[in-house]
Amino acid sequence: MRPVSIHTGAWRYPGAWPDANFNFRHLVRLAQTLERGRFDAFFMADHLAVLNMPIDALKRSHTVTSFEPFTLLSALAPCTERIGLVATASTTFDEPYHIARRFASLDHISGGRAGWNIVTTSNPDAALNFGLEEHREHGDRYRRAREFYDVVTGLWDSFADDAFVRDAESGLYFDPARMHVLNHKGPYLSVRGPLNIARPVQGWPVIVQAGASEPGRQLAAETAEVVFAAGGNIDAARAFYADVKGRMDRLGRDRDHLKILPGVLVTVGDTMAEAQEKRALLDSRVHYDSGIASLSVMLGTDASRFDPDAPLPDDIPETNESKSGRERAIALGREGNLTVRQLAQKVGGYGGGQITGTPANIADTMQEWLETEACDGFNVMFPFLPAGLDDFVTKVVPELQRRGIFRREYEGTTLREHLGLPRPANRFFPAG
Amino acid sequence: MRPVSIHTGAWRYPGAWPDANFNFRHLVRLAQTLERGRFDAFFMADHLAVLNMPIDALKRSHTVTSFEPFTLLSALAPCTERIGLVATASTTFDEPYHIARRFASLDHISGGRAGWNIVTTSNPDAALNFGLEEHREHGDRYRRAREFYDVVTGLWDSFADDAFVRDAESGLYFDPARMHVLNHKGPYLSVRGPLNIARPVQGWPVIVQAGASEPGRQLAAETAEVVFAAGGNIDAARAFYADVKGRMDRLGRDRDHLKILPGVLVTVGDTMAEAQEKRALLDSRVHYDSGIASLSVMLGTDASRFDPDAPLPDDIPETNESKSGRERAIALGREGNLTVRQLAQKVGGYGGGQITGTPANIADTMQEWLETEACDGFNVMFPFLPAGLDDFVTKVVPELQRRGIFRREYEGTTLREHLGLPRPANRFFPAG
Repeated sequence: MRPVSIHTGAWRYPGAWPDANFNFRHLVRLAQTLERGRFDAFFMADHLAVLNMPIDALKRSHTVTSFEPFTLLSALAPCTERIGLVATASTTFDEPYHIARRFASLDHISGGRAGWNIVTTSNPDAALNFGLEEHREHGDRYRRAREFYDVVTGLWDSFADDAFVRDAESGLYFDPARMHVLNHKGPYLSVRGPLNIARPVQGWPVIVQAGASEPGRQLAAETAEVVFAAGGNIDAARAFYADVKGRMDRLGRDRDHLKILPGVLVTVGDTMAEAQEKRALLDSRVHYDSGIASLSVMLGTDASRFDPDAPLPDDIPETNESKSGRERAIALGREGNLTVRQLAQKVGGYGGGQITGTPANIADTMQEWLETEACDGFNVMFPFLPAGLDDFVTKVVPELQRRGIFRREYEGTTLREHLGLPRPANRFFPAG
Repeated sequence: MRPVSIHTGAWRYPGAWPDANFNFRHLVRLAQTLERGRFDAFFMADHLAVLNMPIDALKRSHTVTSFEPFTLLSALAPCTERIGLVATASTTFDEPYHIARRFASLDHISGGRAGWNIVTTSNPDAALNFGLEEHREHGDRYRRAREFYDVVTGLWDSFADDAFVRDAESGLYFDPARMHVLNHKGPYLSVRGPLNIARPVQGWPVIVQAGASEPGRQLAAETAEVVFAAGGNIDAARAFYADVKGRMDRLGRDRDHLKILPGVLVTVGDTMAEAQEKRALLDSRVHYDSGIASLSVMLGTDASRFDPDAPLPDDIPETNESKSGRERAIALGREGNLTVRQLAQKVGGYGGGQITGTPANIADTMQEWLETEACDGFNVMFPFLPAGLDDFVTKVVPELQRRGIFRREYEGTTLREHLGLPRPANRFFPAG
């Protein structure tokens, strides 16, 4: 979820909720459905600006208005019981004290279900909303992100798990010997601490990342517990999997302590033909203006200036934005031998990983990926709402359960337990 | 509420919840009780650091661990239906884009119940958590706050109320002519906009402030819709009321569009003697270490260096912190002819406005304040939880209702409607 469908045509699909992305009652219903399907987590992508696309495409986007992640996920917490709540938060345009505190608070309120999707924010329009004339350079953003992560996790460890004794008799509320003052001073950040909230239920909320670039992979291998990877080509996925897990081996990290979850848009039909018809109908709801705009965002350049009936030119410059989108668009165009117009229509709906088919087809594909080191699970996206999600939960989930490759019940109560991740020790109070 | 009792002894009171401030289930119960009592709002104070008091007092504080306001109030939103949710957010250590977005999101999720308590953050320890070596000077913080307010309200007006048409047939999600790009460039802030969320349900969340200083009063007269004032002396309250409302007259603002609500700690008994016994028992639960530390915070200087058995010295320096606390402490000491020790015990529990008595006594006092231009209402604080709140709702509220000076049912659904405040027009789209 992002929180709703990533597909540009989703809101125009017959029977879909046009306001699914911005209707709290609908989102409660969706989160509860995910929970009934025993999903690990509800994932919320985020942007710190109105999306940087031309106005003719922007005006067709169902994600231009959306809730802020902490307010939405906190409001969903008491409406759900087990499902994880993963919020995106930027290391470029926020402060580590705020971030540490909000995730700790969400983790406590939800009983240990919070996850932090660390992003460095690739939308250059965001900088203009935060007092900066120029966007920070890619490598610079990643160096700040690494330090930011150290500060946030250090702040989470401000109090030992047993620091709060609340002894009404003696009047001792917490044991000062079980409080640590961080006193961090680094190249990007200076933060004294301690954090003004108890250590999170999970020790640390689960650390989530995406980003396929060299610094992104290294940051993930060093720090991430979940990686949202690109879906699509299974060979590329295996190579990515081997690369990131190999980096973990070299760092001495247990490779089971990071779960690689490719994004996959799943369209379910009772027959293959029905599934393909649904997907074709969905794609037909994408306006051409939106297609060319999405392609522009992926490439980091205005694609409307290219000849729509010729292939993509070879000399598209690398920009100071997310590199993964540009590479994926170029590869898609080459693979399918597509014109700019065809590529725009394809990526305008959604150009990433997808599975379209019957529950058995979908389970077959997922099983192959899971069993051949292409991934550890999936970041499932739904083509339209609510029907696309309902189909997945009522048809695909039982098929996966029958095969024994997906849980029938939650075994634990925290997101870490759902994912099989250890609870981190407190670096300042190792005994607890 | 702040969210729980401001009284330092509250967590040690017999039968009180020691973890009331940090137990989500308890806070849900408290918010629902307030709603049953037809309160306008649940108010949440905030700090961006562990409180700046000596460790010997800090370790006795039940507010050292607390939830972050947006996560807590958002989580309370689906657990309540009508009560307003007022969050404190700092203009000194946050960004207007984040603040505008979170309050808009909370307002949408709660159906129009959000309020923003604007603070400039007087705790100098907060600066050290946000990369600053020195705290910003008082006047500088207020000038930034004024500009911050302009930017946030401008961002809330990014979209006309009717901008989102969601016409699935034509593919038009919103009307670009109904979107405004702020393009703010000022001495403190540079923010392009537009905000990536629809205009709040209330147009703007309700604007709340405190602060008794000269720039604080002027900022309130220009921008506030609710002011949390000091309680205590009725003559001082009338003078404050006349001053702020007079500033509004001179600015051409309708004086009914700002509600002055003094803070008052209310202890209820079936007899005056019982109420006084409760209060005395509560005060007796304050540790001396806490008392002297609270006094130090109010004065902005270490009070433990003064002779405990002599009056407060005359030459206490003015500091770059909240001026109102220092003035109040000095006045209290002079009025009561108190030694430092006595003053510490008094302010260590809670030294602000209070009413202790029977429901009739309490209603008498409130009525006098309401009917003689000392205030427009009250920011009621409870001495211990849950019993102090339950007593107020079951005993005092019915007495106020019998006198016709408090509602029996909510008349509206939004916080603005509860308070009788108009919905602001959109400055860029006056017609709607």
